[in-house]
Order: sequence, then structure tokens, then C-alpha cells
Amino acid sequence: MGKIRVSIVGATGYSGKELVRILLRHPQIELMHLVSASYAGQNICDVYPEFINQLDKRLIELDIDKIVQDSDLVFTALPHTISLNIIPDIFARGEIKVVDLSADFRLRDADNYANWYQKEHNEKSRELLKEAVYGLPELYKKEIRKANLVANPGCYPTSAILGIVPLLTNHLVEVNNIIIDAKSGTSGAGRKLSLGLHFSECNESFKAYKCVKHNHIPEIEQELSFWYNSYKGKGKQDRYEEIVISFTPHLLPISRGILSTCYLNLIGQYNEKDMVDLYQNFYQDAPFVRIFNPPDLPEIRFVQLTNYCDIGFALDRRVGKIKIISALDNLTKGASGQAVENMNIMFNLPEEMGLI
Amino acid sequence: MGKIRVSIVGATGYSGKELVRILLRHPQIELMHLVSASYAGQNICDVYPEFINQLDKRLIELDIDKIVQDSDLVFTALPHTISLNIIPDIFARGEIKVVDLSADFRLRDADNYANWYQKEHNEKSRELLKEAVYGLPELYKKEIRKANLVANPGCYPTSAILGIVPLLTNHLVEVNNIIIDAKSGTSGAGRKLSLGLHFSECNESFKAYKCVKHNHIPEIEQELSFWYNSYKGKGKQDRYEEIVISFTPHLLPISRGILSTCYLNLIGQYNEKDMVDLYQNFYQDAPFVRIFNPPDLPEIRFVQLTNYCDIGFALDRRVGKIKIISALDNLTKGASGQAVENMNIMFNLPEEMGLI
Amino acid sequence: MGKIRVSIVGATGYSGKELVRILLRHPQIELMHLVSASYAGQNICDVYPEFINQLDKRLIELDIDKIVQDSDLVFTALPHTISLNIIPDIFARGEIKVVDLSADFRLRDADNYANWYQKEHNEKSRELLKEAVYGLPELYKKEIRKANLVANPGCYPTSAILGIVPLLTNHLVEVNNIIIDAKSGTSGAGRKLSLGLHFSECNESFKAYKCVKHNHIPEIEQELSFWYNSYKGKGKQDRYEEIVISFTPHLLPISRGILSTCYLNLIGQYNEKDMVDLYQNFYQDAPFVRIFNPPDLPEIRFVQLTNYCDIGFALDRRVGKIKIISALDNLTKGASGQAVENMNIMFNLPEEMGLI
Amino acid sequence: MGKIRVSIVGATGYSGKELVRILLRHPQIELMHLVSASYAGQNICDVYPEFINQLDKRLIELDIDKIVQDSDLVFTALPHTISLNIIPDIFARGEIKVVDLSADFRLRDADNYANWYQKEHNEKSRELLKEAVYGLPELYKKEIRKANLVANPGCYPTSAILGIVPLLTNHLVEVNNIIIDAKSGTSGAGRKLSLGLHFSECNESFKAYKCVKHNHIPEIEQELSFWYNSYKGKGKQDRYEEIVISFTPHLLPISRGILSTCYLNLIGQYNEKDMVDLYQNFYQDAPFVRIFNPPDLPEIRFVQLTNYCDIGFALDRRVGKIKIISALDNLTKGASGQAVENMNIMFNLPEEMGLI
Repeated sequence: MGKIRVSIVGATGYSGKELVRILLRHPQIELMHLVSASYAGQNICDVYPEFINQLDKRLIELDIDKIVQDSDLVFTALPHTISLNIIPDIFARGEIKVVDLSADFRLRDADNYANWYQKEHNEKSRELLKEAVYGLPELYKKEIRKANLVANPGCYPTSAILGIVPLLTNHLVEVNNIIIDAKSGTSGAGRKLSLGLHFSECNESFKAYKCVKHNHIPEIEQELSFWYNSYKGKGKQDRYEEIVISFTPHLLPISRGILSTCYLNLIGQYNEKDMVDLYQNFYQDAPFVRIFNPPDLPEIRFVQLTNYCDIGFALDRRVGKIKIISALDNLTKGASGQAVENMNIMFNLPEEMGLI
Repeated sequence: MGKIRVSIVGATGYSGKELVRILLRHPQIELMHLVSASYAGQNICDVYPEFINQLDKRLIELDIDKIVQDSDLVFTALPHTISLNIIPDIFARGEIKVVDLSADFRLRDADNYANWYQKEHNEKSRELLKEAVYGLPELYKKEIRKANLVANPGCYPTSAILGIVPLLTNHLVEVNNIIIDAKSGTSGAGRKLSLGLHFSECNESFKAYKCVKHNHIPEIEQELSFWYNSYKGKGKQDRYEEIVISFTPHLLPISRGILSTCYLNLIGQYNEKDMVDLYQNFYQDAPFVRIFNPPDLPEIRFVQLTNYCDIGFALDRRVGKIKIISALDNLTKGASGQAVENMNIMFNLPEEMGLI
Repeated sequence: MGKIRVSIVGATGYSGKELVRILLRHPQIELMHLVSASYAGQNICDVYPEFINQLDKRLIELDIDKIVQDSDLVFTALPHTISLNIIPDIFARGEIKVVDLSADFRLRDADNYANWYQKEHNEKSRELLKEAVYGLPELYKKEIRKANLVANPGCYPTSAILGIVPLLTNHLVEVNNIIIDAKSGTSGAGRKLSLGLHFSECNESFKAYKCVKHNHIPEIEQELSFWYNSYKGKGKQDRYEEIVISFTPHLLPISRGILSTCYLNLIGQYNEKDMVDLYQNFYQDAPFVRIFNPPDLPEIRFVQLTNYCDIGFALDRRVGKIKIISALDNLTKGASGQAVENMNIMFNLPEEMGLI
Repeated sequence: MGKIRVSIVGATGYSGKELVRILLRHPQIELMHLVSASYAGQNICDVYPEFINQLDKRLIELDIDKIVQDSDLVFTALPHTISLNIIPDIFARGEIKVVDLSADFRLRDADNYANWYQKEHNEKSRELLKEAVYGLPELYKKEIRKANLVANPGCYPTSAILGIVPLLTNHLVEVNNIIIDAKSGTSGAGRKLSLGLHFSECNESFKAYKCVKHNHIPEIEQELSFWYNSYKGKGKQDRYEEIVISFTPHLLPISRGILSTCYLNLIGQYNEKDMVDLYQNFYQDAPFVRIFNPPDLPEIRFVQLTNYCDIGFALDRRVGKIKIISALDNLTKGASGQAVENMNIMFNLPEEMGLI
């Protein structure tokens, strides 16, 4: 098989740059076009000198005809709401696959999207939404394999969903007291300048932000609800139960990484070994999930610059809770690494190719 | 009134050093003896060159006779379990006041202490325990004023208790689902060398630790329970209800500061203004608690090197929860600043003296 | 004596904020007006919540009449070239003293200023320049005492000049091979947003910048030359010798602090004690200079949030050089602390008042 | 060709860990034994959980027979002076190649080594020293290809030598005023605990250390002298001229990376283009040296986790100097990456294999 021809729209944001970094080491792809509205005309090495000697390529303006003609797959790494118009245009020009790193095709319900993102789907994007697959390989590998449009998950959602879903699919926890206390490095906020990301303003500090309405909430709730309701076992509820979570993101004074601490009320008596078995079994075909044996716990440094999501936990018997600690690199498993993982699956390549 | 003669036992740990830093600017004290087992014989400036030109004093071995003779108050800033023997000896030598920064006299129940700290009280310390006052001025100012022995609160407990107590004393929240997700800078772990605090091992990282049995838990539960049960209003329960919490400490890659995110289930309907009023009213005589108006929230940088505890909150109506964000400097309000605040109260000085 | 009435023009930049922080603890001043073009109308606590409970003051637009009427001294903490117009206007309205934290009145030669700052003095500012005093108290205390306009030195120049001048005034070193390798935290670059100061772009990194034409160079050269030529001893040169230096600033991934490593070729044989004596003698009346005994050396953490300039050195006999290490906090001794020190001198207050 | 069988003695120090990290991605090696005195008996993943799922190998005690039997090449990554005994033993057991990451075989003159390292060579190591090759591929590729024992260069020396040598081999600079002001992240100091590397003691700070006698000095001087004296051009000196440098290392509050700022007095008139040509020509066969065009300059972030050494410069015409800025990752090009590069050369593999 020839190499997969790949282009990136939005190549100079942090996710775009991370795609370039990963794809440079991928043995089965050919990097075609790098689109950047901000730096078109310049060489990628002018923007990111770390690529000198490794990649000599001029950034171009968006030219959908050219991109579709020269590519087998396009990564779109654009600010939210912008993909709504661009991706339908891409599909209109020819046979192609797209992995979209924005939130635009993650929420299956267009009204839910409009509600959280203050932007309506257009007619074409709404049509596309029906066939978009939520690109979390641990849960949707089969669907991804056949997909033309993959909606690559958000960084916080990847961390939270992978941490919690095994408990929900087995109805081992209460669903009305789920708390996700998440902490992210600053690159999650992107490269756009803002006072809160000025070095002197966030260095040696720590804060919570968007305390009750972060727009990763509906994405997490969609997936937790879906998998909770997929349960077919004893005591299955009759109606679809919508799970509502309490989610608090915080800003860590580090460049890369997310650690989420999730609190759930356990139903029934389990010991640590039960839980390790449950998780290891659930993720037996997931090469990028690593389960830690208590009392060992994930730390952000273990996953930085990798595509792993590390999961550990502690049983807090005094209060009948389980604490799940889930760590990943927000730019890799939380964005571009997972996007490449999706690409590998879409083209029947080994899932880990170029990612280990 | 003459100046208060003050000595410090354990002057070269981080709490001891912070005591020195603060006391150097305090107009009503005279610094007498600095005791350091590790550096006795050296000048404090050999250990901490930042004090050059400000303090020229030789560190000495522990000599209780001399210390008691020359001091009106002693700060003991020693590792846990060591004060159990030293403090009874101090009181045996003469009239004196002690502020102990360890955990040894914080838990009113000696068995509880033995259980969490793997160390039994001795006969004399058990006797002293009866008169020890828990040194959180916002809750115990009257008692502190008359105390000879103040047990200075822990850093995490100060942050958590100040954040939550106003809700508990008014029975506005459920007590069986209290979650405290706390994050601390590394100085909280002290100056003792350990691999986990080696720069290369914790820089650019983040982790949870002591996930279910951190020994600040009983201290927090003691105070939350006490203040919850102090409620005299409608629907008061008959029996004393012990509150049990879920507490997770995390290590931030910063030197100083704690931020705790607390999750509680609200009973009844309240809006943001109700809550601001409640907190401002509760802390009207507390010069070091600052209440933030939503949507403003505390950040660690606002409190670094100050004695403030900043409290903010968010009402998460979708899930019926209130999130309390509480921030302080672990070495100041979380240790030595609060110790000086207690000293001020014990000697009828203005509470803020030397601390603003 | 009544309190000195003080206003700040440019109160919300980092130097302005640091002035507020220091002045809040100064016992002999009254803070009158805080001028901020960017935030006029808001309370200072909206911009800097750390001041809550300490200062309740609305930021105002620049109103020179009001400021002059209500103030005994004005600190101007504005971007370079802006003071050129404002300060003459201030003096035109009445009797007042000004400490200017910009570079506009530091260079005695207006052409030199025009050359390095691409901006010409106007007629009035050129007139004022004649009476401006370079506000380095260690060298110009007498002149500062009588000055109405003090040009507060730059951060790098303070560090370099204090480190080197004692060698030059005694002609102990060659003057054609002076190298100053300086490293500064990011707050030195101010609060204005720029990609290079975005957290993800400078965290965990380090770089040199403005490698041959940083505009602190003429300021350093002016003072080194002046003091070198002030030598009256044996072998004094006939003509005024202009010293030219090699200066390289670097950006440290920390918020505050400068450390300069200076390399000079020694003439003659000296040992460490000779040098300590020389420096201690030179700075015997300088409360904020601390001389370290070899092999001890300054570190940035020893001076953070203080007004000290710490100086240490090493004799590198193998190459006949002396290395001077000089450390200070760029916002305190490198800017606002020194400005307050100048104010103290101008009003015959103790030099250290409010600064220790 | 079969895979190269590789073992590591000293696998759990930072250099050892970095060797493992790199070799896991190297397509032509098989990792045989990992020796660790500190952690023998444990799995490498117990020490470094980042390797979970990637490497499942038990750490062993040093067993030279077994290692030599099972390996084609051994990396020794031990504290200085320990290799002196171990490496002769390794060679005594059979045909094998060794890359030593310590300083023990870097200095060609055993007396010089004894002088700087306070340790005498033994008879066998002194014998081996004759055939050891200094493993800087940019200067000694031919010799490395044939070597059995490669002395892998130090981190500071790699940065300084690569930056300066092109000027020296062409006699473009004076040799009596060479200044190297170097700054390194903390991993350069290794994993051994020390108070100065405790997070709270070096975070948010910066300092110079070992100001006149760092033991990388003789290594730098050896190479600079050798290459200076290799000059055959006009005006060649008759006798061998020993170059003496002024070197100052500093500690950066980052985990990885070195940036050296070198100051040299230029002889003759050159412009930027001359210099770029000189350097690009000198390094035309060096895949890991990247020359920056002025005014662009290297930054540590561009080289982190890569094997590149980035070199930039500025001509400071006012003082007749050239400033060379040289950046690399101290654990990669400054240690383990370069060691693998040497291995590649020793086994006739492409120099970049596994390193890009």
C-alpha cells in the first residue's frame, strides 16, 4: 500500500503543531499541505524552529480543491464553530476522510451543540453530523474503522470518559453524584494571547475557571449517559437516564498534561483487585490505556509526550466512594495523538503506528 | 507594654523560617532564641542567606530552661509526635505560652490521634490536651485569648474548614457527600529530602497522593462535625452526628499555596447573593478571610506570602451542588502567619499586627 | 511631619502594582491618586484582587491638575518616551517632586537617548534633563536628596553598575573586555501581551534576546564611564575614556529576579579578602547592598520581594579574571523598591523605611 | 544483519533512563540487560512507570560475565571514577564495544584527570585510555567508527566545543579571552538527592555554582586546544598553545536543557553571512547541528527531547566580539542521544537512526 497522503488545516495552533510532530515519525504517511491562516506564506520552521532539518514546507492559505485532490485524509484543527462550514465543503469535493479536532461534530444532538456553543449547525453540517463518529477508539473502534468523518474527542472528556465508563457500563456506581475535578496545563487553552496565560499571571499559581459551564460538559455527559444506558444486566432501568455531572476545570502552571480526579459513590462491596480486573478486562484491546495497581497512581509526567491515558484509583471505604485518577497529555491522547490513532484505525493500520 | 519575648523551637524548617520572616517585621516582639537540632552552632544566615543584614543570630540546641526563662511565648515548629514530649517540659519550667505548629494537640480525642499518627499521647501531654485550644481564630478567638497552649491548625484543614463551616453551622448542605479536592505547593511537604520532591521529579508534573488516609482528615472531620452539631435551629438532630469526608490532596509544581475545591449538595434554593451574604456575615470579624463575589474566584497568586484565606464559590444548579474554592498560602495562613495571628490574640495585640 | 501625599501615574503595570504593594506598608505616606489609562473607572482590586481588604481605590484618568494639587510626590511608571511630555507638564503646575521609572531622563546626553530610543527630547524635557538625577542611591545619595526629578535606574543597569563600579573607581580592571551576561525573569518585560511571554512559549525554556542592542546598554556605559573617569589616583588617564561593554540579556522562566554574571580582567594581584574589603568599604553606607564572602554566592531566591542587591564574586586565577555575580528583584530594587528608596531620601526619611 | 545486542550498566540514573527511552524506539537494537545497583530485583517500570506497556524487564546486579556474553555493546552510565575499574573488566571478558557516559576516559592525560577528579587511573584503565576515542561525532567520526571504547562527552563540553571550534580551527579569534557562560536544567545534576535540588530550593530561582573549578573545564580546554593547534594556515604558531577558558555554570529552574553563551574577540572583519557560511561548511556532514541565521537565535525549547545542538550567533561590532549561543538537551545530545549516535557510527548504522 502506498503512503497515506495527509493534510492539516490549522497547522500552526498547538494541536496542529503536535500533529506535525507526530506525523514526522509516522512511517506510513506523506505530509502534503499545511494550511495556516495566520502564517500562510511562511515556512513552518519560521513559526516552529524545532522543525528545522526535519520538515521544509511552506504554509498555505486554505484551498479546498487542492487539498482534497492531494489528500487521502485531512485533519482539521480549527477553533470551534469554524469546521461547520469547512468540512461540508471538503466532503463536497471528492472522496476523502476527515478527522476533526474541534468540538463541532462531537455532540450528536445539534440543539445541544447550539445551546453550549452559541452557534447553530447549518443544513449541510447537520446532515454530516448523522454519520460523524465520536473518535474515542476504546469505545468506538468498529465505527471509526468505517467512518469518513471522525469527531476527535476533547482533552478533558477523553480523560474523564475513559476513567469512568467501565463503572457505568456495569452499573457499579450511583449516577447522581458524579464529580470530576480536572486540572490541565496551559497549552489546552491554545496559542491565542490572553492575559490569564501571560507567564507572570499564571506561573506559580493555580485556579479554577469556567466553574459551572465549561463546554466539555455536554460531551462528557453524552458519552457517560450513552454507556450507562447501554447496560443490559439485572436491574436495568426502563427509560433512558440522562447523567448530569459536576465538572470543575483548573489551570496548572505546566505546559502539557491533564489529571482528572473523579469521585463516585460505589454500589456494593468491591476490593481493589475487583476493580483492577474490571478495568483491565474492559481495556484489554486498548493499547493506550494503562491501569495502575493500587496504591500506585498516575502522574502527569508519566504520560507527557505520549499517547497513553493512565488510570488509577483508590477505594475510600469510610465514605463508600471510589476515586478515579486519570492522566493524559492534552495535546497527544487529548488531541493530536488520538487523531493519528483514529487515522490509523480508519486506514487499517496498526493502532499504535507512529505513536510509541 | 514591653515587647513580647519570643523563641522558636524548630527554626530552620520551612515553618520556622516563615516565622522568622514574619516576626522580623512585627513591631511588638523581640526574637530571643532560635533552636535548630540540624544547624545548632551556625548562624541563621548561613542556613538562610535571605536574612543577612536583617537578623544576626546563632542557632542553638534545645535548652528548655534557658528558653522558658527568656521567653513569654514559644513557637514549636517540629515534626509531628515530637512536641508530645517537649511541650509538657516547657510548661513544667514556668509560666509561658506555647503555639504548637505540629498536629500533636489538634485532635481533642487522644485515641483518634493515636489511630491516625501511630503514636500514643503520654500522661502529661494527655493532660495538656484538655486545655489546648484549636487555633483557628475565625472560630475560636475567645478561647485563644485565654489559652496557654494553642494547637495551630494544619494547612489543608484551615483551607477546608474555613471554606465549609458557614454552610454546616446553618445546616444548608447534606453531610454525607462532602468532597474536598485539595492541591498544595511543595513546601507543604517540608524541607526533608525525598525523591518525590526532587526538582526533576515533580517539576512540570502533578499527582494525587495519600489518597484515602492523609492525616489531616481527622482534623477536618473533628471541626466540621463540631460546628455542624453546634446548630440550634429548626430540625436540629438529637444525637451528635460525625461527619465523614472524602479528601484528596494533590501536589502542585509550585513552592507555596493551597487551593481546595469543595463539593457539597445544597439543601434548599439559594442564589449567589444569599451565599455571599451568609459568608460575609459569618466572617464579619475575621480580618483575614476575603469573600469573592461570583463569578470572581480565588487564585493562589492572590494569597501568596499573605495571611489571607480567600473564599469564592459557584452554584452548580444542574446538579444541586455548591462548589467552594478556598485559597491560602500554606506557610502563612496555613502555618506561621496563623501562628503569629494566634500570638497576637493571646497577648491582646491587634489580630493583624505584623501580618499585613 | 505630616504624611507625604503620593500619586502614581501608570498604576496597573507591574512596576505600578509593585509601588502600590510597597507603599501600602510604608508608614509615612498617604496614597492619593492611582492613574491608569487602561483601567480608569475600575477599582484597583478589580485589576489586582490581591489588594482586596487592603486598598479600596478607584483608578482614574490622567488629570495633571488634580494630581499636582493633591500630591507631594508623583511616581511615573509609564512606557518609555511617554514621560517626555507628561513630566514637564507636571512640573509646570506647581511645586512637586517626581520619581520617573521610565528611561526618559536616565541618559544625560539627549542625543544618546534619541539614538537608542528612536525618540527626540522636546524642548521642555531637554531642559528638565539638566536637573534630573540618576536615582542610584549607592552612588548619588547627596544629589537625590536635593533633586526634584529623579530618573529611577533600569533593572539590568542597577544590577550591573552596583556589581562593577567598585572595581572601576579604583582602576583595578581593564576596561576593554567587560562582559555582562544577565538573566531576568519575565516580569521585566511588563504586562503587555506578546507571544514570547505566553506561558507555553517560555515555560521550561531559556533564551538570549536583543543580543547586541538592548537599550539598557547606554545607561550602563554612561555610569561605568563616569565612575571610571572619576578616579583621581596614580596613573589617572588624561582624557575621558568611554567604556563600551558587551551585554547579553536572557529570559528566565521565573516571574521575578535578575542575576548578572560579569567578567572583568583584573590588573594586579588580589585575593578574595582584598575584594570583600573593597566592596564592603565601598558600600558601607548602602543599606541595600549585601556582599557575600567567597565561596558563597547570591541566588535570585535570596532577594525576591526584597530591595536588596546581593553581590558575590569569584577570582578565576587561571585566566586572570574576576567574576561578579549580582542579584536583585527586578520589580523591587530594579524598579519600584528603589523608587521608594529614592522618595525616602528626597524627603529625608530613613532610607530603609517601608522597605524591610 | 541481526540486531545489536545492547546492555546498560547504570540504567536507573537519568542518563540510563534516557538511554532506555531512546533505545525503545531504535529499530536495530535488542535491549538485553539493565544493571542497577540501587534497584536490582525490581522491574524498570517500578522505578519509571512511564515505561509500562513498553518494556517489561527486571533490573539486575552487575554481572560482567553475563553482560559481556549477551551483548555487542555496553553503555556504562555510572558516576565518575567508577568506570575506571569496571570497563577494563568488561574488555577482559571478550570482544565487545563500550560507550562510557562518565568522564573517566575523556581526558587524554591521566594526570590531568587525577588533578581534576581527585582519583588516579589504575594500570589497566590507563592502558585503555590510549585507545579511547572522544565521542563527539562532529569532530571524530572516523575515529569513532573504529573505536572499541568511546568516551561520551559531557553536556556542557558538547555545547561549548561545538559552538566554538569552527572559530578556533580557522584562527579567527583571540584565545586568551574566551568566556563561556553556561546555564543548565537540574537533570544535569542527576537523581541523587541534595538540598540544592529540592523543589522548594531551586524553583523560581537561579544561581551560578562551581564558579571556577567545574570539572568540565579540562575537557573543554583539551578539545579547544587540540583543534586550535590543528590549524595549518598562515601565521601558524610554532609551539602547542594551551587554551585556558573562563567557564561559569548556572542552574536553571527547568528539567532539561543547556544554553551556553560564549564570548570571543574576533580577529579581522567578518559579517554575519561569513559566519553562517563558515559554520554551515564546518558542519555540513553533521546531521545534528543546526545553524541559525542572525538575528534568529536558539532557545532551549527548540532542542528539548531531541539530539540537536542548535548554534546561533551575534556580532557585537561595538566591542569587536562574537557571541555564540549554543543550545542542546543535556540528557540527549549532552549524554544519551549522543551515546546512541556513537553506537550507530560504531556499527555502521545511519548516524540518525532512532534519534529523529
